Amino acid sequence: MAEKRIAVLVVMDGVGDRPLRAIGGKTPLQAAKTPTFDSLAAEGQNALMDVIGPGITPGSDTAHLALFGYDPIAEYPGRGPLEAFGAGLETKPGDVAFRANFATVDSKMVVIDRRAGRDFAPEEQAELQAALDGIEIDDVKVRFKATVEHRGALVLEGEGLYADISDADPHETGKKILTVRALKPEAEKTARIVNKLMRVAHQRMKGLETNKNRAKKGIPVANALLLRGPGRHSDVPPLPARYGIKAAVIAGGALYIGTAKYVGMEHIPVEGQTGTIDTNFDNIAKKAIETIEAGYNYVFVHIKATDNASHDGNIAEKIVAIEKTDTLVGKIIDAVGDKIIIAVTGDHTSPISIKEHTCDPVPIVFWSDFIRPDSVKRFSELDAAFGSLNSIRGMDVMPLLLGYAGYFEKFGS
Amino acid sequence: MAEKRIAVLVVMDGVGDRPLRAIGGKTPLQAAKTPTFDSLAAEGQNALMDVIGPGITPGSDTAHLALFGYDPIAEYPGRGPLEAFGAGLETKPGDVAFRANFATVDSKMVVIDRRAGRDFAPEEQAELQAALDGIEIDDVKVRFKATVEHRGALVLEGEGLYADISDADPHETGKKILTVRALKPEAEKTARIVNKLMRVAHQRMKGLETNKNRAKKGIPVANALLLRGPGRHSDVPPLPARYGIKAAVIAGGALYIGTAKYVGMEHIPVEGQTGTIDTNFDNIAKKAIETIEAGYNYVFVHIKATDNASHDGNIAEKIVAIEKTDTLVGKIIDAVGDKIIIAVTGDHTSPISIKEHTCDPVPIVFWSDFIRPDSVKRFSELDAAFGSLNSIRGMDVMPLLLGYAGYFEKFGS
Repeated sequence: MAEKRIAVLVVMDGVGDRPLRAIGGKTPLQAAKTPTFDSLAAEGQNALMDVIGPGITPGSDTAHLALFGYDPIAEYPGRGPLEAFGAGLETKPGDVAFRANFATVDSKMVVIDRRAGRDFAPEEQAELQAALDGIEIDDVKVRFKATVEHRGALVLEGEGLYADISDADPHETGKKILTVRALKPEAEKTARIVNKLMRVAHQRMKGLETNKNRAKKGIPVANALLLRGPGRHSDVPPLPARYGIKAAVIAGGALYIGTAKYVGMEHIPVEGQTGTIDTNFDNIAKKAIETIEAGYNYVFVHIKATDNASHDGNIAEKIVAIEKTDTLVGKIIDAVGDKIIIAVTGDHTSPISIKEHTCDPVPIVFWSDFIRPDSVKRFSELDAAFGSLNSIRGMDVMPLLLGYAGYFEKFGS
Repeated sequence: MAEKRIAVLVVMDGVGDRPLRAIGGKTPLQAAKTPTFDSLAAEGQNALMDVIGPGITPGSDTAHLALFGYDPIAEYPGRGPLEAFGAGLETKPGDVAFRANFATVDSKMVVIDRRAGRDFAPEEQAELQAALDGIEIDDVKVRFKATVEHRGALVLEGEGLYADISDADPHETGKKILTVRALKPEAEKTARIVNKLMRVAHQRMKGLETNKNRAKKGIPVANALLLRGPGRHSDVPPLPARYGIKAAVIAGGALYIGTAKYVGMEHIPVEGQTGTIDTNFDNIAKKAIETIEAGYNYVFVHIKATDNASHDGNIAEKIVAIEKTDTLVGKIIDAVGDKIIIAVTGDHTSPISIKEHTCDPVPIVFWSDFIRPDSVKRFSELDAAFGSLNSIRGMDVMPLLLGYAGYFEKFGS
């Protein structure tokens, strides 16, 4: 067997773009100074990648599942478990998880404020969390964790739970919280539990000190829960079981950490890492190098700043985010280039002109010091189309990385 | 319907490689003088091919199944039936076949030598084969054929046999032959038969003249069988049934002959054809031309020498093997170029630097005097990336060859 390499995946969120008149008809990737990415492109193998499939606009969660080697359609658990993992509420196969909001209802359960005023002090979040976490309904245990502002994650633990239920959230104020129905026969127990939970949560929440104080100040009280994005943690094998690898995630955003943890990666925290342009790129580079040298087989590094700039329509900031990531990757190559096989890409296109995800494919480059080069010289959406890997899918990335890294047994003999 | 062509597939085993510093950063295919391959590339259609899939390192057996148009995952029978066919023991659907070793055990069935000294004279092999071939256990018939040195192939014929059983081979000396267990309920009969066979074979083998003589000379006796690589001949339709074609194989190695025969090809022996660089390339060319003119619809020619050179890390020999195959293919084109559609490729990459199979894709060229050309001018791993067929899979080769050759009816009307 050949010497094994550490597989490294660097994702710049939403890095793909379209030509922009304001920068001479170039994309931000073309306009940015990216000496490292360009030398990887020149020495490596390039492709344009449909992360999910041609014409499909990827979500951040499905895109990352695909990049991690999971079928983004068949193996997508829904947003709930991924958010729960991101919030530090780890689910296990069979659990059903939701994204949760604190909301304000009147005595007839009519929704008055879908965010209960939005702002919550840490001690308010703590009191609400304590009131909700640990509720038991029949044989089902409820786990709850408050996250940012009015948001949280909620997990149901028990036998025979399924996520195929209708929404309790009326999605507008002035309407009553809806009775949840099972959308498939096997989800009837879950629907029953959620309906009971809506009432129990209301009972437990309404009398809390937090709400007495908010009422006194004229701030909307948090006396109900709205749940959305139900998802069931399925029996999908995590990365160590599926591929026999020890994998690590270095990311700033909860959803990316959550998705990575859902598939069995270990989260490596980095001081100063955030989901914005102010993230500490130097510290991320240092920690990535440390992690590569620490015995992991696979290291995933996620940079969110490119996507934030896209959503804000901020060309200059997107270019800066790309250039800083280029420098970051350069440090990794300089330090441990001979130990790795690396892929650099995006999870989707977020054109500055659209400010949202679109279906356009993203460039990807695979580099190692042993890889066959192709004729591409620059890392960009337009150059990548001429790469030797042609068009690939997001689900091809993990097999290519791990195949080149030497982790797969020969198939057959 | 257009005039039909004979489909010809030439596989240079393990021909794919990576750039090598010792030959100026070229691959052996780039360094070799290949006027025929280059003119095929210039006049034909080129692609890089993932024989199984991106990132997957093909085995020789699975790779060839894919190239013959069989799903290498769903339709792979395991090594046993392919080896049995290669040894001239033809299996039929429902048979379970194994690779077999003569071994030495003590009176408690503890393995003393896993190869029973390795060397066997033809008359020793014949006596052992006669003792084993034809054994009947319950309603199951055992067929056995000795092959090279201590090796052989063993087939179980009977109703309700399955290959999902654990291994009898302890895989080290000093340990007892293991009791085989069924890994799936339907394989319980097979496990029982194999356990009985281990004892019956021991009884029949231990008193043979061969063993008395070996014992006298102090050579390990062949008094037990070790079985491995169980596989069941499934109901996969052979090529004549699947595609309505009459197919022939010209190959030196038993595994390649066996795999081709398993899918219904007829073996055409060639005087002087071996699995090494000493194979008679001239005779192979002559026989290939004869076979193309003899009424077959499909002719598969396998050259093993490229892979042997790769496993030995011998650059010069790999280049010679490529150049001799180039000459061989040139003779076929000169003689019957107007009667064929030909594809030239490898079954996997075996880099000289690694000396084993790797996942890197292989170049493939399709040529006929009617085919649309693309812009590729040379046959190599790097040039093929720019071919008009882009990236294909091994399973695409048979449909492309037979489609161009004119054997498929219009799909729809």
